[in-house]
Amino acid sequence: MKINKVLVIHGPNLNLLGTREPEIYGSMTMQDINEDLAKQAKEHNVEIDFFQSNHEGAIIDTLHNARGQYGYIILNAGAFTHYSIAIRDALAAIDIPVIEVHLSNIHKREEFRHHSVIAPVVEGQICGFGLESYKSALFIAISRLQKED
Amino acid sequence: MKINKVLVIHGPNLNLLGTREPEIYGSMTMQDINEDLAKQAKEHNVEIDFFQSNHEGAIIDTLHNARGQYGYIILNAGAFTHYSIAIRDALAAIDIPVIEVHLSNIHKREEFRHHSVIAPVVEGQICGFGLESYKSALFIAISRLQKED
Amino acid sequence: MKINKVLVIHGPNLNLLGTREPEIYGSMTMQDINEDLAKQAKEHNVEIDFFQSNHEGAIIDTLHNARGQYGYIILNAGAFTHYSIAIRDALAAIDIPVIEVHLSNIHKREEFRHHSVIAPVVEGQICGFGLESYKSALFIAISRLQKED
Amino acid sequence: MKINKVLVIHGPNLNLLGTREPEIYGSMTMQDINEDLAKQAKEHNVEIDFFQSNHEGAIIDTLHNARGQYGYIILNAGAFTHYSIAIRDALAAIDIPVIEVHLSNIHKREEFRHHSVIAPVVEGQICGFGLESYKSALFIAISRLQKED
Amino acid sequence: MKINKVLVIHGPNLNLLGTREPEIYGSMTMQDINEDLAKQAKEHNVEIDFFQSNHEGAIIDTLHNARGQYGYIILNAGAFTHYSIAIRDALAAIDIPVIEVHLSNIHKREEFRHHSVIAPVVEGQICGFGLESYKSALFIAISRLQKED
Amino acid sequence: MKINKVLVIHGPNLNLLGTREPEIYGSMTMQDINEDLAKQAKEHNVEIDFFQSNHEGAIIDTLHNARGQYGYIILNAGAFTHYSIAIRDALAAIDIPVIEVHLSNIHKREEFRHHSVIAPVVEGQICGFGLESYKSALFIAISRLQKED
Amino acid sequence: MKINKVLVIHGPNLNLLGTREPEIYGSMTMQDINEDLAKQAKEHNVEIDFFQSNHEGAIIDTLHNARGQYGYIILNAGAFTHYSIAIRDALAAIDIPVIEVHLSNIHKREEFRHHSVIAPVVEGQICGFGLESYKSALFIAISRLQKED
Amino acid sequence: MKINKVLVIHGPNLNLLGTREPEIYGSMTMQDINEDLAKQAKEHNVEIDFFQSNHEGAIIDTLHNARGQYGYIILNAGAFTHYSIAIRDALAAIDIPVIEVHLSNIHKREEFRHHSVIAPVVEGQICGFGLESYKSALFIAISRLQKED
Amino acid sequence: MKINKVLVIHGPNLNLLGTREPEIYGSMTMQDINEDLAKQAKEHNVEIDFFQSNHEGAIIDTLHNARGQYGYIILNAGAFTHYSIAIRDALAAIDIPVIEVHLSNIHKREEFRHHSVIAPVVEGQICGFGLESYKSALFIAISRLQKED
Amino acid sequence: MKINKVLVIHGPNLNLLGTREPEIYGSMTMQDINEDLAKQAKEHNVEIDFFQSNHEGAIIDTLHNARGQYGYIILNAGAFTHYSIAIRDALAAIDIPVIEVHLSNIHKREEFRHHSVIAPVVEGQICGFGLESYKSALFIAISRLQKED
Amino acid sequence: MKINKVLVIHGPNLNLLGTREPEIYGSMTMQDINEDLAKQAKEHNVEIDFFQSNHEGAIIDTLHNARGQYGYIILNAGAFTHYSIAIRDALAAIDIPVIEVHLSNIHKREEFRHHSVIAPVVEGQICGFGLESYKSALFIAISRLQKED
Amino acid sequence: MKINKVLVIHGPNLNLLGTREPEIYGSMTMQDINEDLAKQAKEHNVEIDFFQSNHEGAIIDTLHNARGQYGYIILNAGAFTHYSIAIRDALAAIDIPVIEVHLSNIHKREEFRHHSVIAPVVEGQICGFGLESYKSALFIAISRLQKED
Repeated sequence: MKINKVLVIHGPNLNLLGTREPEIYGSMTMQDINEDLAKQAKEHNVEIDFFQSNHEGAIIDTLHNARGQYGYIILNAGAFTHYSIAIRDALAAIDIPVIEVHLSNIHKREEFRHHSVIAPVVEGQICGFGLESYKSALFIAISRLQKED
Repeated sequence: MKINKVLVIHGPNLNLLGTREPEIYGSMTMQDINEDLAKQAKEHNVEIDFFQSNHEGAIIDTLHNARGQYGYIILNAGAFTHYSIAIRDALAAIDIPVIEVHLSNIHKREEFRHHSVIAPVVEGQICGFGLESYKSALFIAISRLQKED
Repeated sequence: MKINKVLVIHGPNLNLLGTREPEIYGSMTMQDINEDLAKQAKEHNVEIDFFQSNHEGAIIDTLHNARGQYGYIILNAGAFTHYSIAIRDALAAIDIPVIEVHLSNIHKREEFRHHSVIAPVVEGQICGFGLESYKSALFIAISRLQKED
Repeated sequence: MKINKVLVIHGPNLNLLGTREPEIYGSMTMQDINEDLAKQAKEHNVEIDFFQSNHEGAIIDTLHNARGQYGYIILNAGAFTHYSIAIRDALAAIDIPVIEVHLSNIHKREEFRHHSVIAPVVEGQICGFGLESYKSALFIAISRLQKED
Repeated sequence: MKINKVLVIHGPNLNLLGTREPEIYGSMTMQDINEDLAKQAKEHNVEIDFFQSNHEGAIIDTLHNARGQYGYIILNAGAFTHYSIAIRDALAAIDIPVIEVHLSNIHKREEFRHHSVIAPVVEGQICGFGLESYKSALFIAISRLQKED
Repeated sequence: MKINKVLVIHGPNLNLLGTREPEIYGSMTMQDINEDLAKQAKEHNVEIDFFQSNHEGAIIDTLHNARGQYGYIILNAGAFTHYSIAIRDALAAIDIPVIEVHLSNIHKREEFRHHSVIAPVVEGQICGFGLESYKSALFIAISRLQKED
Repeated sequence: MKINKVLVIHGPNLNLLGTREPEIYGSMTMQDINEDLAKQAKEHNVEIDFFQSNHEGAIIDTLHNARGQYGYIILNAGAFTHYSIAIRDALAAIDIPVIEVHLSNIHKREEFRHHSVIAPVVEGQICGFGLESYKSALFIAISRLQKED
Repeated sequence: MKINKVLVIHGPNLNLLGTREPEIYGSMTMQDINEDLAKQAKEHNVEIDFFQSNHEGAIIDTLHNARGQYGYIILNAGAFTHYSIAIRDALAAIDIPVIEVHLSNIHKREEFRHHSVIAPVVEGQICGFGLESYKSALFIAISRLQKED
Repeated sequence: MKINKVLVIHGPNLNLLGTREPEIYGSMTMQDINEDLAKQAKEHNVEIDFFQSNHEGAIIDTLHNARGQYGYIILNAGAFTHYSIAIRDALAAIDIPVIEVHLSNIHKREEFRHHSVIAPVVEGQICGFGLESYKSALFIAISRLQKED
Repeated sequence: MKINKVLVIHGPNLNLLGTREPEIYGSMTMQDINEDLAKQAKEHNVEIDFFQSNHEGAIIDTLHNARGQYGYIILNAGAFTHYSIAIRDALAAIDIPVIEVHLSNIHKREEFRHHSVIAPVVEGQICGFGLESYKSALFIAISRLQKED
Repeated sequence: MKINKVLVIHGPNLNLLGTREPEIYGSMTMQDINEDLAKQAKEHNVEIDFFQSNHEGAIIDTLHNARGQYGYIILNAGAFTHYSIAIRDALAAIDIPVIEVHLSNIHKREEFRHHSVIAPVVEGQICGFGLESYKSALFIAISRLQKED
Repeated sequence: MKINKVLVIHGPNLNLLGTREPEIYGSMTMQDINEDLAKQAKEHNVEIDFFQSNHEGAIIDTLHNARGQYGYIILNAGAFTHYSIAIRDALAAIDIPVIEVHLSNIHKREEFRHHSVIAPVVEGQICGFGLESYKSALFIAISRLQKED
């Protein structure tokens, strides 16, 4: 049986959202995103938790602890997307489906942001839609959690 | 005023969906996808049209003709994703927001599929969720068409 | 049961054969090649059809339509060999064995001609023997169609 | 004897000229360019024809048919400049001198636009002067057609 | 009004200074450097604080917390210089001018040390002068803090 | 005089051993490995300690603290092997001989796992033998600690 | 006058055929191939000899000695295909036409097998058809030896 | 007001024109070119000056001194085209429009000649037409000097 | 049943050990290593043979002949490690487990020594421990031969 | 005994400072910089000379002549930084300590400006601080000239 | 004391000299070269021996055996120049000065011939002078053997 | 008739020979080399001149002026070897045979010194023998000047 609970993980610097480079990331804060997602989850009777850290190790620990606790993970790994093979290995090691999201369209930015080391081990990737990157990820997670029950 | 109408474009070989490499693309046909999207559009009172071609030029012509006719485009450019700079230029030349979608997670496949020449000129990209790649794109299109009215 | 019929597809610019860069391609025309192959096929009681186009999309359509009609395909994709991932995907999507042929030895020519994007999805490749590239391909096709009956 | 007639070929998306990214391509339409060139040709008693297509295959067919009909070709291959080896092969297969033109200075733009796959088989290349890219190409074509008569 | 206070951040392994590879880094300890800088700051009536960590996340947290507390940051990111995009993003997210310093001339060492992922988001870079790398950075920080008051 | 004590450090995700991708890493847990090594050490009258962390900084701190405490280090840096220049610098900064080990043959896996940023600063490397990677490393450490006493 | 005699050279490890990686190379032995080719040669009144060696130098010596003795060479250089410039030079130094063959489709295998250092100096290349790679090579050799007499 | 005067700069080795590799550069001398251009300029009432040097520094000095003296520069930088970043910087530092010309089609020659370090800072580039490369550049310069007066 | 016999193969130039670049390889001769290994084998009741050659072909022949004669192979392929695809294919063709060893830490040496073409087809790799590279390989071989009996 | 005299060398195009691309280089002229540095030198009783040239050879000659005349050199090699191996060799050939300076942060600009061919042979590098790049270099030079007397 | 004896080694395919690609290598045979060198040696009272092989291993054995027998080696390694790391290691392992020679100018030929894997371990390299490549090498060898006696 | 006169050109920094990096270049001065060569030339009744410059343009001018004056050129282009395409073009433009020499073995030094942009247009290259690099070049020049008279 699927676990009807979703974990949203925000990676490094996302705690500054709203104040950080608003021309790229918009003026919405991480708190605003979380509240919007919480509302969307509630409308579909799905539980949702949130976690943010600037520490790679803390994100890995959180992924390990998610085993058996969550049915889906939505992960915006921030800058770790581009080099943290340790997070990649953690994602491959747990058997929870993961959706990789990015606020901005990473393909419009610096060359080094075009490559994601975690993409090959997640279910799929959504980028470029700001808040809707998260919301459409949750749309998919809910749809799959409930379809497959 | 936003045009409350969405165009879905399927690129080369997507007409074979369901029979083509089902271990990668699943058993759903293009017709099945279109019907599911039509239903989703209808529920939100949005018009939707579909187009498929194996001809790069025909897709470019279709993009040109879409100007003034559609408020959003959902594009699965198939193999053209990886080399058709002509489609890229067409996307940059029209001012309709475009969502790039892929059925499979292109980052799990051959190296040459990791790179999209159109990604830098679209709004955002969704890959890896099969039918839900299209459905979540439509979810975003509808949400943005209706929010901004 | 095997379909005792072979389709030969000539890609872009092969219609100019005989007039085009004869120091590379020789003075034989496409019509000459087709007649020679037709004769060879007839001697072994195999049916054979021919198709030429300068349009990538038309070649893809032809490949799609070949399903259930032909037991073997002999393909000289010309310049498309080096970049048409769309043709590659079409070849992978149909389950007809395909033999890739080239008139010239592509490894003696410009660097970009050394790489074939379709080679990994065909049965095998023959290059460098002019007319005999096609004839030895037909030799193999006939041999396999008749052995495996 | 030289054929006193010039063919101008505009590649993909050039039909949108004037409306497409005017900060790069200016506000002049393709029709404006053609009229200006027609006037320049007429002043020097040279015939001139125009062709535009978004279809690679149609441009190849047009190049094939130009044999024996035109003394010079002016080609703006648009995006095909950067990947259409099939057009390159067509240019090498016909024996009409070809002048490659570009409206914008391709060396000021994205990396992938710096490389032209057709440049090694044309007579020369002119880029960066907008309308004058075409006009100076015609200046050269007329000068050579008339000098060598 | 400028905040007349400077933060010096030492990255991983700099706590071992004096004992670690003295042929590259010299025999001076981190404590020695800090004392020398404290003296230089005092002479110019500027406040100065120091922080060292081997944890990437701790450096990011420190950068976030520096907002509104410091007028200038002097950062020797050590090995993180070469791969921590997360620190790069933190530097871009806060609006405090940052001077990147290195004790050794990184261009005389291994190839991978020639590239700094943080250099494009800092004000400038100083390398190769040992203690004077820090002291000249402080010389600039003081000069700019006081000139612009 | 040599310190007759060995430190074994396990990097990120190795705490999941036995449950994580068993087709690559086998079904043995990290605890099993440690017990086997402890037994081997005891048989040769060598002391042995163990440390595991998913935090790069914690591994660096542990390496720093090992100075003067251990005569040999056996390090499986996990994913950090491939990008943690900070751990590399820590290894170069302490003067304890280090043996790099890997459970799997990293040369049979993804391209990015073929390169170790720490290999140039360790004594040697052993990979591909599962538990025996550790055991043969301990075999060498013991042999060298005892030979050189 | 053409020498009506063909030499077939098998490179390193081909003596193990039938026992070596049968999922790639099939269960046919080198002896089986030779017998089949000998029969085909006999049917067309062509003499045929065979040589196999795991020694690069022995293959070079054999190529040198073939001068004046054979009218065609069929060469499966095995692994030497990918790095033996010495064999390449030997092929260029003798003036006997050479057909390069491979049992498997080298373009479906590891990246390093896609490149042949000898291809630019042979007449043409056939790969991917198992026994038929050799047989179609012999078909061409016979056809050319007899046509050109 | 535009300065109705053009400066033509010939880079290194162009003084040998006519004697140097005539199969590439033709038999016309630099003097011949200058005279032809002088005549063309005179016909359109534009003043024209010429400069040649084999010294990079002399070309830079000449560019600096051209400020306020010339309305257009036509530059054949010869071999400096491919590496003189100092000339590139000089071109970017003066605000006179510059047309880059080459006698030969640089894309038909050695790989290193395909890249121009100055192209991104000039108005446009013309190559491959011998004398007509210069003449069509002057055609554009005159046209723009007179149109924009 | 496992064959209780180990073959040690030394590649090119290892016969010079002791006299060759002693700062890299130490002063021990190949004979010394063999004797030490023979003693270690005898203590565990395992038979052991030795082979050295500077001829790639001789090493391939030896590998072929080892089939059915040995239960384990310890291979120091010397310089062949870096380019002999023929040895790689031989290793893949026989089904005896192979341990790759190197006296020196190849990652501390020239760039081209960091890459082993045979590593992907052996069981595992040990490098950097001089004599102990061989001894720990034998430790593993014995342990596996005896455990799995 | 140290020679208490500093030579400042400005490379190509720096004579245009103040008028050249002020958004990158600021509005200060080279003369302004020299005067500011002269004042700073005078305050510390150090002699200072200045040299500017657009000629690579003149800079090399100046470096040669500096031997025995100056105790420190401050060099802004301008564009020569990126390709003048001849200046690099001159710097390595004289034994005067050299500080490399740049007005702008070269890591924020075009890719080719990130690499300095002279950096490996100078004492250290300072970039990104405009006038303060020079002043902090002089700060270091004075400090070292006087400390080491 | 120097050994007044020189060994000339000719690599693969050099035995065919005179018949092999005479447009590259000239019409002189290896025997002619040897005789000319023997005469030159005799004139200077130096002994000289010759060796040719197409077998890499035989060349390595010969190099090993040369120790203590020869004072200088002149080596034309032919194709092995470009990939035989085993010969490189043999050259590094013996302490006889070696002069690398090539008949043709390898920098005028295919890209892969520009790189010599043995060049970094020989005394120097001479290429492009045909017979004089060898003769000038012998000139140097004799001069050094006799000067340093 | 051959001109019995040789020109020796020394490139940048060679005037410092004897004082510059003697561990690489030895203690002999440029004057010493010239005198030795003059003596060797005199012994063979050949005239010889010498030129040294740190200015690329001066070397090009000298090459141009050498036409009709010298029968052979010996060129040590120093650092210009690695980037001066202008000197390369000058060498290709004059029809005097040129021998490229280097004192040191450039293949033992930094990567960028392994590549010579002038090598493809000279007769041949000699490197690594110090004074004997020049002397053996003169040996060849004299031999060829006198043989071919």
